[in-house]
Amino acid sequence: MAFQERLRKLARLAVRMGVNLQEDQMLVINAPIECAEFARLAAEEAYAAGAHDVALNWNDEKMARIRYEKARDAVFSEFPSWRQKFYMDYAEQGAAFLSIAAQDPEIFRSVAPDRLLRSRQAAGAALMEYRERLMKNRNTWCVVSVPTRAWAKKVFPDVSADEATDKLWEEIFRTVRVSEESDPVEEWRAHTAFLAKAAAFMNDHAFRALHYQNGLGTDLTVRLPEGHIWAGGAEQSELGTIFVANMPTEEVYTAPLRDGVDGTVYATRPLVYEGNLIENFRIIFERGKAISCAAERGEEHLKSLLAVDDGASYLGEVALVPYDSPISKSGVLFYNTLFDENASCHLAFGKAYPTCLKGGEKMASVELLQHGLNDSLVHEDFMVGSEDLSIMGIQKDGAEVPVFVDGKFVF
Amino acid sequence: MAFQERLRKLARLAVRMGVNLQEDQMLVINAPIECAEFARLAAEEAYAAGAHDVALNWNDEKMARIRYEKARDAVFSEFPSWRQKFYMDYAEQGAAFLSIAAQDPEIFRSVAPDRLLRSRQAAGAALMEYRERLMKNRNTWCVVSVPTRAWAKKVFPDVSADEATDKLWEEIFRTVRVSEESDPVEEWRAHTAFLAKAAAFMNDHAFRALHYQNGLGTDLTVRLPEGHIWAGGAEQSELGTIFVANMPTEEVYTAPLRDGVDGTVYATRPLVYEGNLIENFRIIFERGKAISCAAERGEEHLKSLLAVDDGASYLGEVALVPYDSPISKSGVLFYNTLFDENASCHLAFGKAYPTCLKGGEKMASVELLQHGLNDSLVHEDFMVGSEDLSIMGIQKDGAEVPVFVDGKFVF
Repeated sequence: MAFQERLRKLARLAVRMGVNLQEDQMLVINAPIECAEFARLAAEEAYAAGAHDVALNWNDEKMARIRYEKARDAVFSEFPSWRQKFYMDYAEQGAAFLSIAAQDPEIFRSVAPDRLLRSRQAAGAALMEYRERLMKNRNTWCVVSVPTRAWAKKVFPDVSADEATDKLWEEIFRTVRVSEESDPVEEWRAHTAFLAKAAAFMNDHAFRALHYQNGLGTDLTVRLPEGHIWAGGAEQSELGTIFVANMPTEEVYTAPLRDGVDGTVYATRPLVYEGNLIENFRIIFERGKAISCAAERGEEHLKSLLAVDDGASYLGEVALVPYDSPISKSGVLFYNTLFDENASCHLAFGKAYPTCLKGGEKMASVELLQHGLNDSLVHEDFMVGSEDLSIMGIQKDGAEVPVFVDGKFVF
Repeated sequence: MAFQERLRKLARLAVRMGVNLQEDQMLVINAPIECAEFARLAAEEAYAAGAHDVALNWNDEKMARIRYEKARDAVFSEFPSWRQKFYMDYAEQGAAFLSIAAQDPEIFRSVAPDRLLRSRQAAGAALMEYRERLMKNRNTWCVVSVPTRAWAKKVFPDVSADEATDKLWEEIFRTVRVSEESDPVEEWRAHTAFLAKAAAFMNDHAFRALHYQNGLGTDLTVRLPEGHIWAGGAEQSELGTIFVANMPTEEVYTAPLRDGVDGTVYATRPLVYEGNLIENFRIIFERGKAISCAAERGEEHLKSLLAVDDGASYLGEVALVPYDSPISKSGVLFYNTLFDENASCHLAFGKAYPTCLKGGEKMASVELLQHGLNDSLVHEDFMVGSEDLSIMGIQKDGAEVPVFVDGKFVF
């Protein structure tokens, strides 16, 4: 009963605060078939909130793996136009998009990287307009997670699948601030207010660059474009709806200057890319481009990611997360970007969020590029925060202001 | 292990004999999310058979019920155009369609019949061209079933859901001729040859009408159109592929003359329509039209079915099944038309199969109607066979030839 109550609270949170569904608005739910129970609760909550209708977009990673392994090679460059129409029709109707991210982090381990790459490229090209809309907040969207057995077993390998699932549920409820006692919507109002304050600190300083250093060997300078905006917590859609795109979220973030990244950065947590684990890697940047990379595990997948297109080897996001965030403190490695990125300061390869530039949401890709914002079919976060991370903000006049000391905000 | 082996044999049977998938052909699988294990096996078998690709069209009856109960009234007259495109794009590419029919027979019991009706009408209108293609065998298609827990519990209410599921599996394997020992593809070659012989007997006589009588009170004359064709077992697609549209199948069938049905007929098994049970009913026909109906249970749903459109109250199929068919002998009521129709002689409200008329697959609906074939958005079978059923064939010269005596073929 207590569990069911929290489950419903999470569904309500995702609908009311996540996508913040409005009266007569359409809701699209992207859900793994294994997460049907939660998807159904979210649908019920959406109808209770006055949804026009709810459309389910089921997916099944086991079926996807069968296809990656058994289908003929040509199909991975194809993308069905009905699926493109699915996303675009609902986006143009002003739908909200709720996605349930729950993947076995190693489901595609044995799949040929070339098939994953081409598949990603085909989807990226076909869904470019749809994804642009979401990145520009023309539609509200939210990503939440619920456990699947395979994912839970990866996070907690030493216990049974049932127990692992229970433990993962507890971690998820904790990190998204859902408990039996409190109203998570109220909790989230307070939390997003704190993130707004951190973003305001960064925006007030309007730094020209950030300089990262730690004992691992990271020594990286990231310049920020003129007119960049730090955001975090709640966002605002084109139509003025306040929504929370990621649950959990602990970050404030902006766009780096595409050609303004120089130095070396060491990843501090594994990156799961297309079901493949990339661990203990470092990247060297020169004038924005990743010119060299090495990884103890999954190096070929890292290289495959950087090769998706030209923009994939440039950065599109710089995000600040205190090293003592609740997710970091839990010490759990979730093998899921939604959680792991909120444990740590991170950067992202690929596309920048247009909303991170003044007036950016009204600019075409080419114009955004002229303003220094990277473009790509991909957007992949990787973690760079550590207990000893220092970040100095460099002002226009060259003066340095401490932003992070010992992995935490100074402000 | 033995179970897994039979499961895979069934998947292979559905792919190789059911839709008879050809090299480089696309396969669409319509599957309840609860039947994912079988759907994945069918996909594997399809790739092994040389499929171009496999597209999954997942559905979830529990989500459908939530929608029927909670969504606003207007949506039930809507049908998304991306879904129409999904079916038509694949149909026009020459895809094969494999559907897994597995429904809790009472899932929609508490849903307002008007919502079900409008939903059906909207889907019927949007998918008319797609369904026409399948009815004309322009694409190969096959319907098979695998258990869901709710369905199994309905069929075997006195045992646990686990045990009920096991028992339903045994019944399904038996009726589709899948066993550990034999090759089901060979079994089906012999079985479809028998059905072809029964169809040939009926075609050779080219009866003008059939006269049904039994002790329940059935006294019905069904005239048959000029040029009608009896079919059964395997069918042939436009491109010449031999396929089996229903597994199991025990029937030979043709189209009745739309305005040529007169008298009274008593149903001998329940009809499950849109998740609602209709039991112990009788219909009176006059010049083809059902002018009166009564049911001990679910009469409002029967009336709702007959009211879908003009053609829904006329017959579109007449099918002969010996009373001693394997499904009939099992004595199990499956609450699933795919099985129950093969337990008994039956009739269907609604659309006639164009393939049941010489040259029909090349005719438009209006032309088919001129030849006496009924048209409708629906096609719903109901059972009329009984142990004492007699069917006399009436020849053009008025002479009568026994077709069924005591519920069985005479030939």
